[in-house]
Amino acid sequence: MNTTELIRKKRDGRSLTSEEINYLISSYTKKKIPDYQFSAFLMAAYLKGMNKNETAALTKAMLYSGNVINLSSIPGSKVDKHSTGGVGDKTSLILAPIVAAAGVYVPMISGRGLGHSGGTLDKLESIPGFKTDLSLTRYKQVIKKCGAVLVGQTKDVAPADKLIYALRDVTATVESIPLITASIMSKKLAEGIDGLVLDVKTGSGAFMKKTSDAVALANSLINTANSFDKKVIAFITDMNQPLGNYVGNWLEVYESIKVLRGEQEDDLFELSTLLSGAMIWLGGKASFIDEGIERSKELIKNGKAFDKFLEIVKLQNGDTSFIKNPNKYPKSNVIEYLYSDKSGFISSIDNFQIGISALELGAGRKNKEDVIEPKAGLIINYKIGDKVKKGDVLVELRSESKLKIDLVKNSLNKALIISNKKSVKPKLVKKIFK
Amino acid sequence: MNTTELIRKKRDGRSLTSEEINYLISSYTKKKIPDYQFSAFLMAAYLKGMNKNETAALTKAMLYSGNVINLSSIPGSKVDKHSTGGVGDKTSLILAPIVAAAGVYVPMISGRGLGHSGGTLDKLESIPGFKTDLSLTRYKQVIKKCGAVLVGQTKDVAPADKLIYALRDVTATVESIPLITASIMSKKLAEGIDGLVLDVKTGSGAFMKKTSDAVALANSLINTANSFDKKVIAFITDMNQPLGNYVGNWLEVYESIKVLRGEQEDDLFELSTLLSGAMIWLGGKASFIDEGIERSKELIKNGKAFDKFLEIVKLQNGDTSFIKNPNKYPKSNVIEYLYSDKSGFISSIDNFQIGISALELGAGRKNKEDVIEPKAGLIINYKIGDKVKKGDVLVELRSESKLKIDLVKNSLNKALIISNKKSVKPKLVKKIFK
Repeated sequence: MNTTELIRKKRDGRSLTSEEINYLISSYTKKKIPDYQFSAFLMAAYLKGMNKNETAALTKAMLYSGNVINLSSIPGSKVDKHSTGGVGDKTSLILAPIVAAAGVYVPMISGRGLGHSGGTLDKLESIPGFKTDLSLTRYKQVIKKCGAVLVGQTKDVAPADKLIYALRDVTATVESIPLITASIMSKKLAEGIDGLVLDVKTGSGAFMKKTSDAVALANSLINTANSFDKKVIAFITDMNQPLGNYVGNWLEVYESIKVLRGEQEDDLFELSTLLSGAMIWLGGKASFIDEGIERSKELIKNGKAFDKFLEIVKLQNGDTSFIKNPNKYPKSNVIEYLYSDKSGFISSIDNFQIGISALELGAGRKNKEDVIEPKAGLIINYKIGDKVKKGDVLVELRSESKLKIDLVKNSLNKALIISNKKSVKPKLVKKIFK
Repeated sequence: MNTTELIRKKRDGRSLTSEEINYLISSYTKKKIPDYQFSAFLMAAYLKGMNKNETAALTKAMLYSGNVINLSSIPGSKVDKHSTGGVGDKTSLILAPIVAAAGVYVPMISGRGLGHSGGTLDKLESIPGFKTDLSLTRYKQVIKKCGAVLVGQTKDVAPADKLIYALRDVTATVESIPLITASIMSKKLAEGIDGLVLDVKTGSGAFMKKTSDAVALANSLINTANSFDKKVIAFITDMNQPLGNYVGNWLEVYESIKVLRGEQEDDLFELSTLLSGAMIWLGGKASFIDEGIERSKELIKNGKAFDKFLEIVKLQNGDTSFIKNPNKYPKSNVIEYLYSDKSGFISSIDNFQIGISALELGAGRKNKEDVIEPKAGLIINYKIGDKVKKGDVLVELRSESKLKIDLVKNSLNKALIISNKKSVKPKLVKKIFK
């Protein structure tokens, strides 16, 4: 096949066959197609789109660029969740132990923080000793033993995705529904799952700002999952404000512990139990989603979810003493507060700015080689619609650097808008697609 | 500036500023932007287009990536012609001596054959000894002395164009009006010209198959020339059949000699004198184009154009004995004929196939490193609308290889369509833009 001709075909808006897509991906992965041709193809695909069949073929080609984990030796359903990412989204840490405690296996491969959005691996690694780079053998041992495992993508999993993602990042071809779909699904399918719950975020703190884009992505993900005969359900959920109140790696582990202990029943609790309920239902351990949600709440109340979390942390080398007694975790050197300069109601939050502020304080990376400060982050005390009084602490800022806090405070000041009129709380779950 | 942001801007259909375009071109030329980013930009520019100002800025940035020749020491107008290329188009060889003989300077930088289309340099180099790679000093000497010079692009002329063209070629981003415009104009403006005559080809043997595309390119070229304050005129001319009857390097020099000697008054004669007439008019040596055309015909008749051609060949090291006595040039080893298998009228010609056939016989290059056989080519005895009888020689084929001739004969057989109905001769000049 002639690479230039295939670029031309996509450029002219024609559909590529599975064989053609396979040729492009396998040749690129083997370095037989140079970056400069592949990036022209990516831009053509970005601007001309790819249909359902092309997206499935792309996913398949990327999936089989690496190893597909075989979990058939473990009896029972394996279900995972994927979120498109947001600010304060720590549901993975909460639902993995819940679902495992309900008897459904959760083989979860997660990513690191990206821009304003946090990453499950970075959060887990704030637990002293916690290992996310397990060998395949250990991965299987952990999931077999306790029903859940939380690791990072190894180089054997969808290597095409890693190569392509790095190229997309510097060629302005990230925000493409078919390319995002193939990137997500190739990694998730490599886990050897039977079912997948999708949490597609929309709003100021999400990658998809518009609900219509989130709906398009959800449909594309569902179509692709169906073409691989996987059970799937997608939720479009709100990301116009942080999920829960804590943003930052250890701070989010801390908040997860609170939810798992049944000490916090907020939006984070609601979404975590909805997603875990759906996973339990997909895994065949509940007849309806609502039954799965009830089961989840039960497992929190009776302590089994928290016990499962301790088990996972222990099996992955983490120091469980910090989970059992989170207050013994060291605090940041500098802790400051942002006070409200007037009374009223929180009418909107620039959630992207919240994410960026946490990153600036040390919770994320500006460059790949940056080292994360696990303790850094923000505690946002109010949600949209909440009443505040002048002088109330709106946000608590934590960092190792006073300078960083001073810089962030200023921009954060404009991120929470307070008005005189009572404002409506955004709906957490906007749409459900089965 | 951030390269990814500029790619994103073009991807989203927004216009880039002159500074942004300048940054992209100068950074790419200095290897500060990698190929993979530039090719994504090229695909975005291909699919989203560039407006008049962007195209002018792109041309300027590419022009000033190299040296702009200063011909101000030579008094008088300097005018060149550019053709978008076709099959049998040897007008440059004919009009350069005519226009120089009329007192207008012709500083012509030409290219090599590309795909099915021949190149002026390859044609000139079929003349034994003819040098197309003159130093800048010699270039100026030759034009000063005889009024015309015919050379190839040196590495100092628009180096950005060379880099970008090579990348476009392998990323399916060649056929873009703004990119073609900047490529043509950056090279032509580097010659130090005052005026430019454009011959934009359309039809089966042209790069622009559709007249509407040719019109769009002509408009874009004219807009760009105007933005540099250059005098310009564009003709849209027919390329549905070879220009003249000879296709192949020496064969085209041979036919040019015939026209310059006043021995042939066909479509080639008509177009050459039209273009030279326009050049003489742009150069201020005629009050109207028609007067320039009459002057051209006069210079052929009185032998001054042919004498000027001899002078150019001599100053560029060529052996003029072959120009004076072209029949002494060696003939191809294998000469065969394609006969008509029926009587009727030539109704259409697959002119692209004619070009490819000449290439296959040895007149062109399949790969950059291929060596051209100067004697190889085709003589097409008929034009669209001509009457033919069964058994007439339609085409004479010349090559060093019998095998090549056998292969070509078969495909050539289908390239000339003969029908019972008398067909209309295509109009040579379709449109004129001033």
